[in-house]
Amino acid sequence: MAKTKAICLLFLAFIPALAQPRQRAVVSPEVHADRRVTFRLEAPKASEATLFGDWMTVGDKLPMTKGDDGVWSVTAGPLEPSIYLYSFTVDGLTIADPINPRIKLRARTSATMVEVPGDPPALWQIRDVPHGKVEVNWRKSQALDGATPWIWIYTPPGYERDTRRYPVLYLFHGSNDTAAGWTTAGNANFILDNLLAEKKAVPMIVVMPYGHAVPFGSPREIQVTNTDVFEKYLLEDVIPLVESSYRVAPDRQNRAIAGLSMGGGQSLTIGLRRLDLFSSIAAFSAAVPREMETAFAEVLGDAEGTNSKRKTFWFACGKDDSLFERSKQLDDLLTAKRIKHTFRPSEGAHTYTVWRQYLGEFAPLLFQ
Amino acid sequence: MAKTKAICLLFLAFIPALAQPRQRAVVSPEVHADRRVTFRLEAPKASEATLFGDWMTVGDKLPMTKGDDGVWSVTAGPLEPSIYLYSFTVDGLTIADPINPRIKLRARTSATMVEVPGDPPALWQIRDVPHGKVEVNWRKSQALDGATPWIWIYTPPGYERDTRRYPVLYLFHGSNDTAAGWTTAGNANFILDNLLAEKKAVPMIVVMPYGHAVPFGSPREIQVTNTDVFEKYLLEDVIPLVESSYRVAPDRQNRAIAGLSMGGGQSLTIGLRRLDLFSSIAAFSAAVPREMETAFAEVLGDAEGTNSKRKTFWFACGKDDSLFERSKQLDDLLTAKRIKHTFRPSEGAHTYTVWRQYLGEFAPLLFQ
Repeated sequence: MAKTKAICLLFLAFIPALAQPRQRAVVSPEVHADRRVTFRLEAPKASEATLFGDWMTVGDKLPMTKGDDGVWSVTAGPLEPSIYLYSFTVDGLTIADPINPRIKLRARTSATMVEVPGDPPALWQIRDVPHGKVEVNWRKSQALDGATPWIWIYTPPGYERDTRRYPVLYLFHGSNDTAAGWTTAGNANFILDNLLAEKKAVPMIVVMPYGHAVPFGSPREIQVTNTDVFEKYLLEDVIPLVESSYRVAPDRQNRAIAGLSMGGGQSLTIGLRRLDLFSSIAAFSAAVPREMETAFAEVLGDAEGTNSKRKTFWFACGKDDSLFERSKQLDDLLTAKRIKHTFRPSEGAHTYTVWRQYLGEFAPLLFQ
Repeated sequence: MAKTKAICLLFLAFIPALAQPRQRAVVSPEVHADRRVTFRLEAPKASEATLFGDWMTVGDKLPMTKGDDGVWSVTAGPLEPSIYLYSFTVDGLTIADPINPRIKLRARTSATMVEVPGDPPALWQIRDVPHGKVEVNWRKSQALDGATPWIWIYTPPGYERDTRRYPVLYLFHGSNDTAAGWTTAGNANFILDNLLAEKKAVPMIVVMPYGHAVPFGSPREIQVTNTDVFEKYLLEDVIPLVESSYRVAPDRQNRAIAGLSMGGGQSLTIGLRRLDLFSSIAAFSAAVPREMETAFAEVLGDAEGTNSKRKTFWFACGKDDSLFERSKQLDDLLTAKRIKHTFRPSEGAHTYTVWRQYLGEFAPLLFQ
């Protein structure tokens, strides 16, 4: 064993990228067969370390215990199968798990993810089925003052080998997330792959743009313009890029709009405004505009018109989500105004655990 | 100001994702007009904090100073225009900058990146030119025991609108890097976009697979098999995926192979073995096999054959790189054996700063 280690160190010395940072073989996270998960952090000099995971109630934390080797650890669960976000707080400093490579990119800061697989594999897990691609596009945007954000776009299996035109779902992320979020944390591509393999959804293109049209963290007077600037970006840059570079069916019957949290506010606001562009709308745990009666006045005043043109109007929220009441109010308002819709209250809170589930429920309703 | 802050906090309270983690408005990194960069870390309870950036000599560090507000800071530079990797060490714990969203994914751990732009913009910077796409593909691999790693593939601007067949560069990353590295840290896509806009390279597809064919961090007896397993993966999965899903010219004249560090060892070993598959080879700061005379015996014994079939054989290394001597030895060996090649010693060390430069020099030599 000692000899193996010596040879190994000798070997490492020849590859600079391996040789540093000199992490020892601490394992974190470690997912056990019974779905408990052990988290570890090597921080010998720290006096306090805690874990926060998004299966926990916001504000809670799990204390970690320091071992003689300077490694802090805590075991959580058993956890239901899902992909969870977690972070450590060490002497007041909140960090992603420094040795876990599965990073959740954010607009500011980052977190780390741990996957607890299901048996049989959950809808969001990668399965042995044909896989679509996710294509990263860049386009300079006048609406965004010349910035060139990336746009992630899912194309279904076989897209590159046929000649048909596809319907498009525009799918938005939440606040402090990025255009990569629906792929790297939401597994939207694997969910679509699996639905297609089970013939539960029709093949579609899924367009995932960056939703912070004004810089994340801007002062409030700028932040409140985000949805309007984002709408301009969507209409002037994102949709034209998609309709010029992809084989899509460019009409309202073949366009849907959906989003989570901040992106749910965007999909509701833009989708309800632009009935001429989008035939279906969804919102997941949405930041529904608080002045919803004013914001949606036009739609609310024309139940017949909107009901005749709207194919699907679906929204969902978890009962443990602080935004739940707003979705409930929207449900009540739409019901009072006789606007056809489906409100799907669910278990859960404000996490990708419910958003993956919602996408799995909503996508099959589209373009049928 | 106080009022704005109060309103802002009120607003934040309605969006859970914004409300936590409760980072204050510390800015890090801050790139100044004179190309100095200030790094900051809020860690009031820490007793020591240092910065390591990859413009520094390995092993060096810059001490950070704690302000009255508990924020540590240090200013480095001026730095030459580039994208640098950096990390903090806080009381012995090495972490990525916890508030910088620009994360460099790795096979284990992560680091953060800071971009110091050039004026005029450097070849690796995003410019106002037509952009290609980077497509993320997934394919289950028998060679990798059923794993389904992602493969990042650059397609040049206009690829989706024409019908021609393209040459392909297979481009490998280094140890502890991922298939995303050549895009998110190497800016290979922007380098190609810019070369194409200047008509300095021909349009090509660039295939960037995951190079850790056996798990990163495996014991040495497994690690030493990595190149062989990777070759099997490349031949049985990556090339077949590319040649069935992309419009490529599937012959050796239109295939090149290149890589950096560990990936340079792979491109040399596989490229020299498989003259029938690849007409051009490059290696950047390569982990050249130490037993190079044995490893490359077949090629070294057939100068005439290899010279007549090899279009380009190019390798480069920085003089401050601990691997420099191995590239120099390879140069000497090839010269002695009369194998045509170009060795390009350069300034610099073992970082993406030189690898972006090498790609910019090598890509124009291909498929002309």
